[in-house]
Amino acid sequence: MVGIDELNFEKGGGLIPVVVQDYSTREVLMVAYVNREALEQTLKTGYAHYWSRSRSKLWMKGEESGNVQRVRAIMVDCDQDTILYMVDQKGVACHTGNRTCFYRHLDYGESL
Amino acid sequence: MVGIDELNFEKGGGLIPVVVQDYSTREVLMVAYVNREALEQTLKTGYAHYWSRSRSKLWMKGEESGNVQRVRAIMVDCDQDTILYMVDQKGVACHTGNRTCFYRHLDYGESL
Repeated sequence: MVGIDELNFEKGGGLIPVVVQDYSTREVLMVAYVNREALEQTLKTGYAHYWSRSRSKLWMKGEESGNVQRVRAIMVDCDQDTILYMVDQKGVACHTGNRTCFYRHLDYGESL
Repeated sequence: MVGIDELNFEKGGGLIPVVVQDYSTREVLMVAYVNREALEQTLKTGYAHYWSRSRSKLWMKGEESGNVQRVRAIMVDCDQDTILYMVDQKGVACHTGNRTCFYRHLDYGESL
């Protein structure tokens, strides 16, 4: 177990990237960022909160769309500079209406 | 499909974060970063390459440990500023010897 005080927020200028994965299907839904406050709000409420870099504000995922994320588990990586939310996703994760933000392939021709 | 020229490398100072997921088990293995060259090497060879921020150099995952990642698919997110490698992981992904870098829970007490 890793305590919140052991996380390395400094490395990313106060922000840590969060990989968001569907708890049941294991699908990777999105990547967002948290500062300490957003992570604390997530722990307090059980719903995914993030720091919006473009709007410079704390937000709860789904606060407008209703597509909230109930957090089932939070994992920490070996360097303590990245975390993983495992969530129950209500509706879709992506603002485009797709289930996941990773809905398109990179055009790699015949190379893979 | 998204072309490599459509990716937003500028947003992250030339680097894009990569979520790495096991193609078969769907486990999230690690998060790393690519510049354009690392991504091109990945496409060219079929094996995951990254840019090391700490060592400031291109590296192929497993070049020393042998724990290479054969890339099966590369997905792009809606903002074109994050990508997802789906890989066949040889051995373990984490330098600690764990299968995934996300092997520890955050200590969230009774809050989730």
